[in-house]
Amino acid sequence: MKIAIQGEQGSWHDAATQVWHSGATIVPAEDFAETFDLVRRGEADSLLIAIENSLYGSIHQVYDLIESYGWPIIGEVHLQIEHCLISEDTLSDITHVYSHPIALAQCAKWLSTHLPNAKRVEYHDTAAAVEHIVGKPGAAAVASTHAAALHQATILQKNIEDNPNNLTRFLAVQPGAKPAASVDRASIMLVTDHTPGSLAKILTILASHNINLSKLQSRPIIGEPWKYKFYLVLDTSGKTLETALQEIKPHTTSLKILGQYHHHSS
Amino acid sequence: MKIAIQGEQGSWHDAATQVWHSGATIVPAEDFAETFDLVRRGEADSLLIAIENSLYGSIHQVYDLIESYGWPIIGEVHLQIEHCLISEDTLSDITHVYSHPIALAQCAKWLSTHLPNAKRVEYHDTAAAVEHIVGKPGAAAVASTHAAALHQATILQKNIEDNPNNLTRFLAVQPGAKPAASVDRASIMLVTDHTPGSLAKILTILASHNINLSKLQSRPIIGEPWKYKFYLVLDTSGKTLETALQEIKPHTTSLKILGQYHHHSS
Repeated sequence: MKIAIQGEQGSWHDAATQVWHSGATIVPAEDFAETFDLVRRGEADSLLIAIENSLYGSIHQVYDLIESYGWPIIGEVHLQIEHCLISEDTLSDITHVYSHPIALAQCAKWLSTHLPNAKRVEYHDTAAAVEHIVGKPGAAAVASTHAAALHQATILQKNIEDNPNNLTRFLAVQPGAKPAASVDRASIMLVTDHTPGSLAKILTILASHNINLSKLQSRPIIGEPWKYKFYLVLDTSGKTLETALQEIKPHTTSLKILGQYHHHSS
Repeated sequence: MKIAIQGEQGSWHDAATQVWHSGATIVPAEDFAETFDLVRRGEADSLLIAIENSLYGSIHQVYDLIESYGWPIIGEVHLQIEHCLISEDTLSDITHVYSHPIALAQCAKWLSTHLPNAKRVEYHDTAAAVEHIVGKPGAAAVASTHAAALHQATILQKNIEDNPNNLTRFLAVQPGAKPAASVDRASIMLVTDHTPGSLAKILTILASHNINLSKLQSRPIIGEPWKYKFYLVLDTSGKTLETALQEIKPHTTSLKILGQYHHHSS
């Protein structure tokens, strides 16, 4: 199984891919759009892509890509993001810390307490930062345990992230895939009509069928009162989903199932 | 008026600050948390901070900072993000393009069409990239018209962004500020109770008072069925807001007004 991801071996996308499909071969892409392009050109069978992070929110661009390609979501993976300080030197000898800007930002407090004088250097990828510091005196990287293992580098300190609630949700997407036999989750997109209260009606219908939402996400709406574009993740399947969507349909101007899958976490 | 922002002069935060309060002095911070710290230490009077982007979604971390400091939101600014290719050379002589990774990603299509062979170089700030390329043969930067003007650099091409729908919403936050006399918008945070349908009930109450939502944002919820944390932006004020919140309260375990302000856009 060849899976396209943004980033290289040892990146967070790689770590999530190993949770999703252990032993899969990753096909690295430079950005989110390229992962879809790699699958389109047949260079990968499917793709795994971050959709939201508990600190940074949803990545709307990824929803746009999923909608524009129209390929089904076949699964999801949750990954706790745990940053490590990786170096071949001791803490007191570190003069430079390399990592992706987001990883550096997520460890800002720890770094300013323990390495107040070390220079922070931004790098395009956390795993590449580890590769870069190997053999460099005074250099450290912020990356995952997975990246440290990959480059046989030493972890000086685990869990240096400021906020322990740093969870990323990834989606697996595969063209032409049929839903598995046992699914318990559906990802849908809808646009409500211009009527006041139509969103309330939709949520009332879901509650009446005892369907829980694990996610409800609006897109920013400028100047279109009462009209919303929503992404919902519903904990349900089969006949119940079908009946609920039939009842919801009159309150929407657009309604799409983006995928049905078995909920999978780690 | 001294306003703390993430980034330097010429950054998008600076451009938004000029829309919000023309002639304000910016106090640059390295990250979002530092903008709050600068205000806490009295080095700035208020802060202006990005809360969401139409492509990348909401920045939950900013909500966390606003909640933990408890300072009121006093206004908002919408800014259309328009990237320019800036260089002192002609297009055919450009060998390197410098910018923030997000700006480079947002112009990926244009760059691969018009500068397929130029190397992309990641830089920590778009405005700093402009400063860096001035006087460098073969170098170009991707940044705003504002940054080009600041460093007296030449714009070769405007609007090179792949998606023209690239809008960022910024919030102004000021400790101890009282709501202005004329407000038309309220930003609130609530946590629903564990009852199925409580969110539907809340939205029904808002619709019954003819209160439109310009935003409804859930935070990712893991393993807490029927319980949600929400950020809502309501187009209303005064007595109507007060009455609606009274009715909503029984369906929540937490309810906070994050700010009331006059809606301001550009």
